[in-house]
This record gives sequence, structure tokens and C-alpha cells, in this order.
Amino acid sequence: MTTTSDAGPPSTGRRTPTIADIAQLAGVSPPTVSKVVHGRPEVAADTRAHVERVIRELGYRPPRKATRSAPLIELVFHELAGIYAVEIMKGVERVAVEHHLAVAVSHSQGRQAPGRGWLEEVLARCPVGVIPVFSNCPADQYLQLSIRGIPLVVLDPNGVPDDDVPSVGATNWLGGLTATRHLLRLGHRRIAVITGPQWAMCSRARFDGYRAALDMADVPFDPALVREGAFEIADGVAHTAELLRLPDPPTAIFAFNDGMAIGVYNAASAAGARVPQDLSVVGFDDYPLDQWLVPPLTTVRQPLGDMGAAAARMILDLAGGGEPPAKRLELATDLVVRASTAPPPAR
Amino acid sequence: MTTTSDAGPPSTGRRTPTIADIAQLAGVSPPTVSKVVHGRPEVAADTRAHVERVIRELGYRPPRKATRSAPLIELVFHELAGIYAVEIMKGVERVAVEHHLAVAVSHSQGRQAPGRGWLEEVLARCPVGVIPVFSNCPADQYLQLSIRGIPLVVLDPNGVPDDDVPSVGATNWLGGLTATRHLLRLGHRRIAVITGPQWAMCSRARFDGYRAALDMADVPFDPALVREGAFEIADGVAHTAELLRLPDPPTAIFAFNDGMAIGVYNAASAAGARVPQDLSVVGFDDYPLDQWLVPPLTTVRQPLGDMGAAAARMILDLAGGGEPPAKRLELATDLVVRASTAPPPAR
Repeated sequence: MTTTSDAGPPSTGRRTPTIADIAQLAGVSPPTVSKVVHGRPEVAADTRAHVERVIRELGYRPPRKATRSAPLIELVFHELAGIYAVEIMKGVERVAVEHHLAVAVSHSQGRQAPGRGWLEEVLARCPVGVIPVFSNCPADQYLQLSIRGIPLVVLDPNGVPDDDVPSVGATNWLGGLTATRHLLRLGHRRIAVITGPQWAMCSRARFDGYRAALDMADVPFDPALVREGAFEIADGVAHTAELLRLPDPPTAIFAFNDGMAIGVYNAASAAGARVPQDLSVVGFDDYPLDQWLVPPLTTVRQPLGDMGAAAARMILDLAGGGEPPAKRLELATDLVVRASTAPPPAR
Repeated sequence: MTTTSDAGPPSTGRRTPTIADIAQLAGVSPPTVSKVVHGRPEVAADTRAHVERVIRELGYRPPRKATRSAPLIELVFHELAGIYAVEIMKGVERVAVEHHLAVAVSHSQGRQAPGRGWLEEVLARCPVGVIPVFSNCPADQYLQLSIRGIPLVVLDPNGVPDDDVPSVGATNWLGGLTATRHLLRLGHRRIAVITGPQWAMCSRARFDGYRAALDMADVPFDPALVREGAFEIADGVAHTAELLRLPDPPTAIFAFNDGMAIGVYNAASAAGARVPQDLSVVGFDDYPLDQWLVPPLTTVRQPLGDMGAAAARMILDLAGGGEPPAKRLELATDLVVRASTAPPPAR
């Protein structure tokens, strides 16, 4: 970050700002700045907020190794549930073990961002780095971590992350496009989607890929075929039941995760619709059990383990003072065609 | 532990043995004993083993808080896979969070016991306690932990644990009995089981419950109906395919985990056998997705989350110098009847 000469701060030019620079600009003593940087509690909340603002404006970075890190990588889930979490954990652990680090796992109890108490505990543990999974880190929490030299890499973030925040995801747009194109090539024209929640960026990208595929094939988009889920099996069940009752029901359903696809199977069976003869189904994730479902599930594979490993490697690069190869890394998705998709029934 | 007065060691009577006592009996200097107790590397391997033997014989316990613990509970999986791992982790984390502890997750890469390098890293981290899941801690590793005052609670151990080692499991025998009795009451007489691996104590207990139910109902035991799996979906598929080809095939299959029950569904479908009209299926675990399978799976619920929480609470009791309420805690299993079981087909 560079500061322009007329922007007001002391004439640091391109020199890295020091604690003294921050103290001067903030109008507090250098020991107060130092306390804020090291996360000590004995600073009033408004003073702390003011000093943090100045720190952010000046682009201060603490000297490397100012604080001794614990041999830990923190992995924070939005919700600790399902196979998704285990697959990512395995990838993070694979890299952590090579570097003699432990992986500390916590979750924000379904909140999209970890609570205040969480941050204080992380700061006390002083890990090598933090990986929030499918959970955004609010700007103030990110600042708190970064001024203490704790790098953060967001995995599959649920909003468009600030350009400053490194992140790892998958090529969700392309995955959405590929799945839809597969159904179009089989002859489907009434293709429904059960999306993730609106706040999830990965879901938005899959949806945009779906629309792009429809547009390129000149198939009209029908809002009645779009249903919003929350990545839970029960969402797949409820939305499928409704979709199959439409006057002009879909011949294919693309669920934005495999859990909801299991729900589609359930509701299709209850409605007497056979998969794939009456209804084609595509999922997203490629869980290990997909190949054993009846019928085996066609899905878009995203390399969850590799995504976890990539995030861990970015943490280590950043902790070592280096820069990651890219701020936003998107690993490849891949369509895995099994037995749940077929041409639509003749009408 | 008490020592009898004629057993040979220095006259410590009921007094807690000291480092000096150990040094005297082992014929080494007190600093050498101290180095062994604190896990320093500069002691020859055979000297270390000799001193550890003496420590074990004397029942030495280090003074509490000799080493400062990191705010961590170590959770070690045999293999990091599937929903089983996540459910346990959630339970451990629930208790850890209340005590401002992080949960460090690692796995022994499919080995039944963690490797040597693992132990050294755990000792370096010095956690509040260690919970191996479905993985045994060899006696020497247990000793290494206990002489450093790091408590260990084994979760669902794969062998009969030493009486000294606290452990948490479920009432597997009763679960096996209840599932089998449910099938017997429906009228089944040809009931097959797909067990876990022989080394898994939980599988042995379920199998014993199965045999007990057969015996009590005067139904003859047929070894041809017993197949050993390794808790993988693919085992359920392969064994079911074979069982259904028997001259006198089973009318019900009791799979010793839900993953293998999903495999039974798959193979039954491939063989044209309808569940439950032609074949009843019972699983074990009660994963969240069981209720959404087609048909919903009848299974024996084991409270994985509560088991994780109980193990974490035992760790905290032990770390605080207390004793757990019981050395071996078995939480209740419960039969959950859904739609995969029905009376056998008329012949």
C-alpha cells in the first residue's frame, strides 16, 4: 500500500510506518499503540478502535515473529456438519502434518461470521494462521488478526471477499455451466435448480453458470424452476415435491450440493417418479457415497481436500513472509457422469 | 496404586514415589529421570526404556502443573472419514468451547495406533488431554503421556482396553441384541450380519448381542450368514451380493454401520431385491441422512456427539486431578425403527 503525499499522515513516504508514526497520528502514546497491536485488554474500547483505524490507514505491518506462534492452524467452520467438513479437514491436515502443525477445529454455530469471543480465543492461542470455511471474517476481525501478523485465507467464501483477503474456492461458475450443458445435450429443456442460500457466493456462481448455459442454448429461463435451499437434505425434499406438482414440471433437477440431491431422490420416490427415467438429477460436490446411491449420482466434483491443502499452503507462505501465487485461487471442478441422468421422457 | 512392603522397591510405603526413588531403583542419576519425565531427547533409548519401566512399576505421577498445558484437547482419529468423525468432533468441541479450549484434530492414517512421530509432536504441544478415537494407544505411548501428566481417554476402543485406561463407548452388545430381536419379532429366521473388522471391540460386542438374541429365540446360528467387513460402503455391497446368491439366502441383513447398510441397499437393488418387501435391512449409528434414504433406514442409534462430549469431560476431570465417575463409560444405544424392516416374504 502506498500513501499519497497530500493525504495527511506523517511523511513516511514509502517507508514502513512504525509504532511511533501511529502514536503520533493517533494522538496516543507509543505504549498504547503497542498494547493494541499485541491485543492486551487494558485499552479502552474507543481508543482501541481509533488506533486500529489509524493502523489500517497507514498500512502498518508488525515486524515478523514479533509474537511466537503456536504450532497450530485454526480451521473455522460455519457449521460442523456432513462430509464436506471432513473432506476439507483432511486436506488441511495433510499439509499441516508435513510442517509439524496441529489443526485446531472450531465452528461459528451456524452464524455466518464467528462471534467476538471466538476472536479473543484465537488471538490468545496465536496460531500460525486462520482458515474460515464458508464463513466470512468481518473487516474488523481481519484487521485484528493482520495487525498481529496472523494470516487469514478464506475457503469458499460466502460473499465477494475484499481484494485484500486471500481466498480459495472452486470454479463454481464453470461447474454450473457444465452440469446444465450436460442436461441440455441429453435433450432437457425444463431444468430446475435448487440453489444454496443467497449469501453464498459459490451458489451465485453456480446459478450464473446455469443461466449462461441456458442462454447459449437459447432455452428460455423460467423463474418458476428456481428454488432457494440452504444446502440441507430437507430442502431438496421440499422443493422437489413442489416442483413435481407444477403444471409443467421439470424433467431434470440440478441440486447445488449432493445432500440436496439425496433429498431430490427421496421426494421423487415419494411422488412415484423414477430417476433417471422420469427425472434426471445432478448434484454438486462428489461425496464418496455418491457412487453407491441408487442410482449412482451424476455430480460436479469439487476437490474439497485439495482446496483445504491449498489454503493451508497459502497460510504457510504468508506466515513465512511470502506472497501466495494468487490472492484468489480457484481449483477445477469436473462433471462426473453416473446413472442419475438420461434423456427426458417422451411426452 | 499401592505397593506391598515385600515387593522390592525402596521403602516408599504408601508415599508417592519421588524422582529420587526412581533414580535409586533404576541406578541412574535424578537428572536423567527428570529428562525422561519431561521428554527431553538427550537420553539413550535403552536408558529411557529402563527408566520408564521403573516409573511404571513404582506408579510415579508427576506433580500437577509441572508442565504448562496448551489450551488444546487432541482428538486422534484412526481414519478421518465420513460423518462418524464429524459427529464425534461436534461433541468434543461443545465441551471444549465451554472451557475455552481448542480441539486439535489429527489422524493415524488408517493405522490402528498413531506412529512414533505423532507422539513426539503431541508431547511438544503438551495438550490438556488426548482422545484417540477408534484407535488404541499402545502401552508405551500411554505411559509417555501419563508420566507427563497428560490424561488420555479412549473413545470406542478397538480392543479391550487396559483397566487403567479410561474409555467411552456405547452399549454395543445391547444394540446388537435389540436389532436382532426386532428382526426376529418380525418373523425373520435367516438373519445375516456384516460385521466390522475382528480387531474392533465394538463389532465384537454387537456380534455377541446378535448371537445372544438368536440363542434366546432358539434360532440356530448359521456361520454362512456372517460376513466380515471393514465398515466401508463397498463391504456392504460385496457381501450382500454374495449373501443373496446363497442357496438359502437371508431375508434380513444387519449391517454393523450405516455406511455398509447403504451398500446393502445398492447390492439389493442390483439383484432386484426390494427393501423391505424382499429383504429387511438394519444399520448401526443413525447418521442424519438415514431418514432420507429410500426407504428410510431402521438403525441402532449410538449417541456419537454425547460420547465425544463425555470423553472431553473425562479429560477435564482427569486434568484437574479428579477421577472420572467410571473408568469405562457406556452410553445408551437405541433402536430407531423406520421403513427398511418388514416381515419376511412368504415362501
